[in-house]
Amino acid sequence: MMKFSVSKLSPEGGRLGVLSDIHQSSEQRHVEVFTPACLMYTRGGSVPHLTLDMVRCLPHQSGIVELTVSSFIEYRETMEGFKDGLAKFVGIPNALTYLAVQDSCKSAAAGYNDKSTVSVWAPSGRFRLNSASFMSFQRAAKSNITEALCDGDTREGCSKKRIQKAVNKTLQFLDEILEENLNAETCQQTEIFGVIEGGDLLSERLRSTKETAKRAVAGFVLDSFGESFMKEETRWKLLEPIIKELPEDKPRMLPQIGEPLDVLLAIENGFDLFSAFYPYQITGKGCALVFSWSDENKKTLNDQTSKSDEIKEGFYIDLNNKRFAEDFSPVLSDCECYCCQHHTKAYINHLLVTKELMAGVLLMSHNIHHYLSYFEAIRQAIKSDTFALMKKHIEEQHMRTDR
Amino acid sequence: MMKFSVSKLSPEGGRLGVLSDIHQSSEQRHVEVFTPACLMYTRGGSVPHLTLDMVRCLPHQSGIVELTVSSFIEYRETMEGFKDGLAKFVGIPNALTYLAVQDSCKSAAAGYNDKSTVSVWAPSGRFRLNSASFMSFQRAAKSNITEALCDGDTREGCSKKRIQKAVNKTLQFLDEILEENLNAETCQQTEIFGVIEGGDLLSERLRSTKETAKRAVAGFVLDSFGESFMKEETRWKLLEPIIKELPEDKPRMLPQIGEPLDVLLAIENGFDLFSAFYPYQITGKGCALVFSWSDENKKTLNDQTSKSDEIKEGFYIDLNNKRFAEDFSPVLSDCECYCCQHHTKAYINHLLVTKELMAGVLLMSHNIHHYLSYFEAIRQAIKSDTFALMKKHIEEQHMRTDR
Repeated sequence: MMKFSVSKLSPEGGRLGVLSDIHQSSEQRHVEVFTPACLMYTRGGSVPHLTLDMVRCLPHQSGIVELTVSSFIEYRETMEGFKDGLAKFVGIPNALTYLAVQDSCKSAAAGYNDKSTVSVWAPSGRFRLNSASFMSFQRAAKSNITEALCDGDTREGCSKKRIQKAVNKTLQFLDEILEENLNAETCQQTEIFGVIEGGDLLSERLRSTKETAKRAVAGFVLDSFGESFMKEETRWKLLEPIIKELPEDKPRMLPQIGEPLDVLLAIENGFDLFSAFYPYQITGKGCALVFSWSDENKKTLNDQTSKSDEIKEGFYIDLNNKRFAEDFSPVLSDCECYCCQHHTKAYINHLLVTKELMAGVLLMSHNIHHYLSYFEAIRQAIKSDTFALMKKHIEEQHMRTDR
Repeated sequence: MMKFSVSKLSPEGGRLGVLSDIHQSSEQRHVEVFTPACLMYTRGGSVPHLTLDMVRCLPHQSGIVELTVSSFIEYRETMEGFKDGLAKFVGIPNALTYLAVQDSCKSAAAGYNDKSTVSVWAPSGRFRLNSASFMSFQRAAKSNITEALCDGDTREGCSKKRIQKAVNKTLQFLDEILEENLNAETCQQTEIFGVIEGGDLLSERLRSTKETAKRAVAGFVLDSFGESFMKEETRWKLLEPIIKELPEDKPRMLPQIGEPLDVLLAIENGFDLFSAFYPYQITGKGCALVFSWSDENKKTLNDQTSKSDEIKEGFYIDLNNKRFAEDFSPVLSDCECYCCQHHTKAYINHLLVTKELMAGVLLMSHNIHHYLSYFEAIRQAIKSDTFALMKKHIEEQHMRTDR
């Protein structure tokens, strides 16, 4: 059974932990995940734009890959026929996998969940899942960690009654799934993370949290916190009371939070796990992450066009911008990623203007490299008690970021 | 000055040659190109879908990269500012480059060339080029080999007068470009390939060929042979008389011909250089090249769904097809490409169905690997006098290919 031990509770907020002994097959690598950490975000089982060889070269990986039910649900028969599980199917037999119900990056369409099912959207359309069909897919997928089925469709303007129903249904799913998992052969079991719902209602969020905490789950997922209906003020106000209800010795996942400052605030509040969808979102806009997390790495953005001593950028630069057309320096001059080692901002600008796919490849290789390095820096900051300093540094850049 | 020496004229048709001493900068690798060869096809300066690291791992490369004017023309000012040429701009400073006027893969829009200019289409729209503006771009691009500006807009139903004009204009461009090149400083010079036009009229093709052959060109390009207006019968009937008018000691390029059998027929007729656009076209359809070139590599397609002893495929298989959804073997079981070493047909099918970009990456890595290996096999076949046997083998598969 999975272990999670907190190795440091920082007085500045935030905690360091180690996730280990995750239930796994003999083929899979034993992994110790040092938290706070982000899982590798994938689409269709691959890190968007990057080949496995490129992914292997990325630093500071958690070792856990996030796979989404919606990407594979129409392949459930294929998976059952394949017998060796999703990790092997997508070409990463050694990796540990986390099965997520919905994509961290996209909001599922609203209004489709009914009394006993939750809808996920595959390319061919809608699939309704209940606990039984969900777990039968999970058995074929052989995920190491599995988010329990949940109803997060509690949008703005949603009635209290609808939110209560979503919480109840999610708890019922959880009970059914935990029982099914317990009855499975040992080698077929998975680590179940319970999902906390409740929209933007504090009372329902607390009820969902307390009830989930009573169950024998391996960890917690706080769902729907990145959705647009969650006003920023509401979000951070809800977080503190929720966290207080959670036991210390289990990891807490916040899948839809990805912006550098949001991540810090969540970590400050005691969250441990995230999804690395943000670098992919930034890549889709033709942007490159350039934020720094300390004074030492502050001036690495060598912008030939501005030539200013201090760079006044936000979290990212938009490489579609004409001002980069003649900027023959890399995105960040001391970055060790594939993109910065081989290519210039001018070339990426050119690829974006000519709409070539390579733009996405290069930007993604930089952005994910930068983001994983950021998480490593956060762990170091908690270790060395410089978290508050880092937060101040990130807040400054947050103010300069268009959102 | 570039040298081309024919090392074998095969009695079965086809010739082996070596291209060497191509005019180059001190930074660039000295390359001997063994012909028949295909240049590396690029878009925006990168091999579609593949990173430089992946490209470096490809076998049997010619060492010459094809860059297209239309991809870069709107960056002419950037290039002038950059000063170090296109190869360095796109991140391949050591590679030799071939500058093509139009993309081998796309037909330029018809009806836009006027008396003194040729139009190329950049993402932002139309650019009109004459000899002077073309060569000013070439100086900034610093290509090692340059196709002379040409008017290939001689579509079906084109009048004889229009075709004559196109031939005359192309010859006039060539004279102007050769003169400009001769007057340039030695270090600024490029190898000029003369372009043969003339639509589907034998008389004009012959006039264009004879006149171009009189000029001090480094090689020849037979343009517009892949366009749809060139009926297949016409094409091969025109080829023989044209080739007879060309001197033996200069290379002959046929940029728009890419299908396996077409390539063999062209080589049989005496062509030396091609563009590797075909693997990219096949990739765009979600297909994988599986053709074999000898009995030895005939049964490598391990199709679990058919389980037949002899595979009856054409040149490629369509991985969108549902029959591959549960085929957990690689595209070709003894292929050494990145895709076949790591992934199954079922996974590629899944990526195509879920519309993930990784499908293109994997297919492209296989298809270009297969295609480059094919050219190596052709050279070996000419060397060992098994060209006719190979042609028979390819013809059989050609008959089974949907076109």
